[in-house]
Amino acid sequence: MSDLLHEKTPIRTRHIPPGQGQAVEMKTGQLLQIQTLQGKQVADFVAFTLGDSGEFVSTSATRSSNVNIIPQKGMTLYSNRRQPMFEIVEDTVGRHDMLFAACDPVRYEKLGVPGHASCRAALTESLGAYGIDFDRIPDPVNWFMNVSIQQRGELEVREPLAEAGDYVLLRALKDVVAAVSSCPQDHGPTNAEHPTDLRIRVYRDEPLPAEAEPAADPSPVEGEALAAGTEVSSTKPTAGERTAFASRPARLRDTAEATGMRGER
Amino acid sequence: MSDLLHEKTPIRTRHIPPGQGQAVEMKTGQLLQIQTLQGKQVADFVAFTLGDSGEFVSTSATRSSNVNIIPQKGMTLYSNRRQPMFEIVEDTVGRHDMLFAACDPVRYEKLGVPGHASCRAALTESLGAYGIDFDRIPDPVNWFMNVSIQQRGELEVREPLAEAGDYVLLRALKDVVAAVSSCPQDHGPTNAEHPTDLRIRVYRDEPLPAEAEPAADPSPVEGEALAAGTEVSSTKPTAGERTAFASRPARLRDTAEATGMRGER
Repeated sequence: MSDLLHEKTPIRTRHIPPGQGQAVEMKTGQLLQIQTLQGKQVADFVAFTLGDSGEFVSTSATRSSNVNIIPQKGMTLYSNRRQPMFEIVEDTVGRHDMLFAACDPVRYEKLGVPGHASCRAALTESLGAYGIDFDRIPDPVNWFMNVSIQQRGELEVREPLAEAGDYVLLRALKDVVAAVSSCPQDHGPTNAEHPTDLRIRVYRDEPLPAEAEPAADPSPVEGEALAAGTEVSSTKPTAGERTAFASRPARLRDTAEATGMRGER
Repeated sequence: MSDLLHEKTPIRTRHIPPGQGQAVEMKTGQLLQIQTLQGKQVADFVAFTLGDSGEFVSTSATRSSNVNIIPQKGMTLYSNRRQPMFEIVEDTVGRHDMLFAACDPVRYEKLGVPGHASCRAALTESLGAYGIDFDRIPDPVNWFMNVSIQQRGELEVREPLAEAGDYVLLRALKDVVAAVSSCPQDHGPTNAEHPTDLRIRVYRDEPLPAEAEPAADPSPVEGEALAAGTEVSSTKPTAGERTAFASRPARLRDTAEATGMRGER
């Protein structure tokens, strides 16, 4: 057995094409999997306490409380009230960003492509039902975004290290609404010039099996046939799901490599 | 002449003891000087568009638009709508932070000192008249805060490099209300274990003289006799002000050193 999710059944599945977002409600203890289906795709993530949108995941509180700028396995994501919101239960990549703002309409205007889809607009759209407007979209955690910091503080965006099927798995530590957008940035390396679909899934609050050995034979998850935003409630994992999870390779990168802040830089 | 402000007259002066905050309104083009009187004192800074508190200085938009994590001279501070809010006109230190959250009551509870004064509470108090509550205090720019990033993304807080009289000077690029708190953190190196007073001053929108040579004989600004929050409207600089500004040494640190991300780390 290679994966914590092997025996688990998603209660909610959403496919997210580039430039779109999806919001999902989660109860305390439930798990959210955010997965790049073809690889090299950034997932912008924000979350609010359910019924109290004044509290949200704060990248600054998360950096401060963990005394670290890189979200990584075992880390807790904190709110703007410095309360635990999520735990990073699994991470098959080890390289993510919580320094960059979500791409937004002004960003694309400056790039000479006014009217381009953006994460900020997609997150706003997906959270509209919760009364959260554009100005109140918090700084996101940018899962799979690969940012290096140079000696003088310069940031350099590189292609994501995430390969097909890579994912992060977050446990909600309170009742939340989480929103994820599939970054439509097609100018530059953010999504390797070619944005692709994400899949998010919510799992029930059940005990996780102990972590097991990785399988020897990785076979990447292929894109699936579900339409964007389709919600699937199944009671058992499909054979495909079982295979996909069972075969997830252990590709967690060394964090030092992941930060890009090696001695020689 | 050694200083851009030598010929200029403050229209507003506030002294800020540790644990307190002050909000000042500024018109487009006006200058805000934030100064550590005794040195090694962190100034948490937030700002909102006057009359439109949905827009505020965003550290993530500032990092993204400048593609850099270190606020430094010549840089523009951007809003959450990615609009220019301030320009950093002068900076006698070159080392500041825009990664850490403001210290807050939970932070001090965890340190075993519940009820301790905090930047977040001070900023909230100072902005109360603008209808901006605790949850809406944005991530601050932490002037003079000295944070190093290690190879694995770990953050390390060190004593500020700012010495007595060091300051930053910001030009408002729109009408704003800016708030500054003097960080009361006395557990650890943030303020060299000993928080001290800040002084902030607002200057009119007048042409700045060309940048001039530094003076040879530094004489640090001493603490002054004004009570906390005292507002002073003067029409001419006092002899003391003139001396203090004329004698500012050029101590701008090399940015590579300032980031703490040297090759050997």
